Amino acid sequence: MSFDPLTVSEEIQGFIRRFVETNNYHGVVVGVSGGVDSAVVTVLCAKALGAQRVFGLILPDRDSSRTSTRLAVELCEEFGVPHRIFSITPLLRKVGIYRMFPPAFIFPRRIQENYVKNKWRTLSRDPYLDDLLDAGNAFFKKGLAYYRIKHRIRMCLLYFEAERRGYAVAGCVNKTELKTGLYVKWGDSAADFEPIAHLYKTQVMELAKLIGVPRKIVERPPTPDLIPGLTDEFILGLNYEELDRILMKFEMNEDLSNEDPGLVQRVKQIVSAAQRRRIANVRFTD
Amino acid sequence: MSFDPLTVSEEIQGFIRRFVETNNYHGVVVGVSGGVDSAVVTVLCAKALGAQRVFGLILPDRDSSRTSTRLAVELCEEFGVPHRIFSITPLLRKVGIYRMFPPAFIFPRRIQENYVKNKWRTLSRDPYLDDLLDAGNAFFKKGLAYYRIKHRIRMCLLYFEAERRGYAVAGCVNKTELKTGLYVKWGDSAADFEPIAHLYKTQVMELAKLIGVPRKIVERPPTPDLIPGLTDEFILGLNYEELDRILMKFEMNEDLSNEDPGLVQRVKQIVSAAQRRRIANVRFTD
Repeated sequence: MSFDPLTVSEEIQGFIRRFVETNNYHGVVVGVSGGVDSAVVTVLCAKALGAQRVFGLILPDRDSSRTSTRLAVELCEEFGVPHRIFSITPLLRKVGIYRMFPPAFIFPRRIQENYVKNKWRTLSRDPYLDDLLDAGNAFFKKGLAYYRIKHRIRMCLLYFEAERRGYAVAGCVNKTELKTGLYVKWGDSAADFEPIAHLYKTQVMELAKLIGVPRKIVERPPTPDLIPGLTDEFILGLNYEELDRILMKFEMNEDLSNEDPGLVQRVKQIVSAAQRRRIANVRFTD
Repeated sequence: MSFDPLTVSEEIQGFIRRFVETNNYHGVVVGVSGGVDSAVVTVLCAKALGAQRVFGLILPDRDSSRTSTRLAVELCEEFGVPHRIFSITPLLRKVGIYRMFPPAFIFPRRIQENYVKNKWRTLSRDPYLDDLLDAGNAFFKKGLAYYRIKHRIRMCLLYFEAERRGYAVAGCVNKTELKTGLYVKWGDSAADFEPIAHLYKTQVMELAKLIGVPRKIVERPPTPDLIPGLTDEFILGLNYEELDRILMKFEMNEDLSNEDPGLVQRVKQIVSAAQRRRIANVRFTD
């Protein structure tokens, strides 16, 4: 699949400008996480509209990596994007989520991360499929509720900021996430417009380099940063290179005989289970 | 348009059962507000699945009418639906929304309601259209942010409850609301399935009587119960009888010459502006 980051960058900037103008928004709010997807969206919005018409909201919670917050701030500063850090921990505490799990934060980050990784493996035979299917035992389901509310609360705050300003909320999901279900329904997938939803993760990373997203952001292992230690590739059990290559071959109906059949099978299984996450507002008349 | 509440009631119950079984949910969570829409959904789910597989979450905030909460509890008790009241006031306080507006709650309810109604009229020449278009002055926009976050926070809590239980979230929007934009994007319009989205408000009310929703609920003036004093009909500037009749005529392409041209024009204007609320996740490829 031919992919020219320069053309793509210009096309997306045009899309952002058209979207904002057609719908009379004064600007856009981006939830800046310190990861590469929101960094790309922030920079493209700043290039398209001017940095002053972008507002970056950085919304860490107790479990977020401090590096994420630092990188998010640095990105906004580097591109001149007005921004604010607002911890969602007090809100989540009022909901009572932190009572559900032991206060791992008293341990050093590395120990937390290893604990969670080992625990995750023991939770079910196939945690990611169980996640996609809302299955698993009671402890596991508690974990699903625990992490998903974070992205939904973030969505609430992004809109709260946007509505006061007459801004639109920019979404940051990419095509790999959409196909594999690596997002939270009505959470990070809920926005007014999606500038990178047509790009695979590996394409987002190429684009990031072109538009000047700092190396520190492009090169960190992608993570939802919802539970310490759980990176995207750990959760999926696949690396993005392989995953995107197989997803692209599915999309283009290309020959899969060069691929590891086990991997192909796994990706198929994930894509199929991810359909469930799209079950939304099913109506009687559907 | 022929409407037989008995047939409709049975069809919807079948739909609920099929939806829950097909998708392997253990039951459903309903946000019970004390209004007629959520009451109908609660009762139909209880009839379809058995009351023990329904969970009613009652989520008032500082501005909710106490009558609403009382009626919601009474409904759940009458139909044997397990339920819980959880005030969202502490969460909203952490977000800082109550600092935006004077603490009207120190005044009696009636005075609050009259204050808000008078204020609402002075806010813009056409507050409901401004709401649909995210327009209006800074004070008005603050009001939009203030009320909308409530329904979105409710959505977060409904899913938090549902995910721990392996339940689906039932939506409670009706067709009149969907057509006129009388809902909050990613708030009350975000759910797993929508049992009454194919019914106009006046049809929901007929259905409510048939299935035994208490008269006190059916007969109260419908209100989003987000800001004291603002009922649906006050906000829309139309009554549901007229509104639904005109909407149905639009749908069926029926003759409108018997209708007040001013009203028809107004409904057209609202329906057209309500399109904007459907702008969701617009993608580069759209």
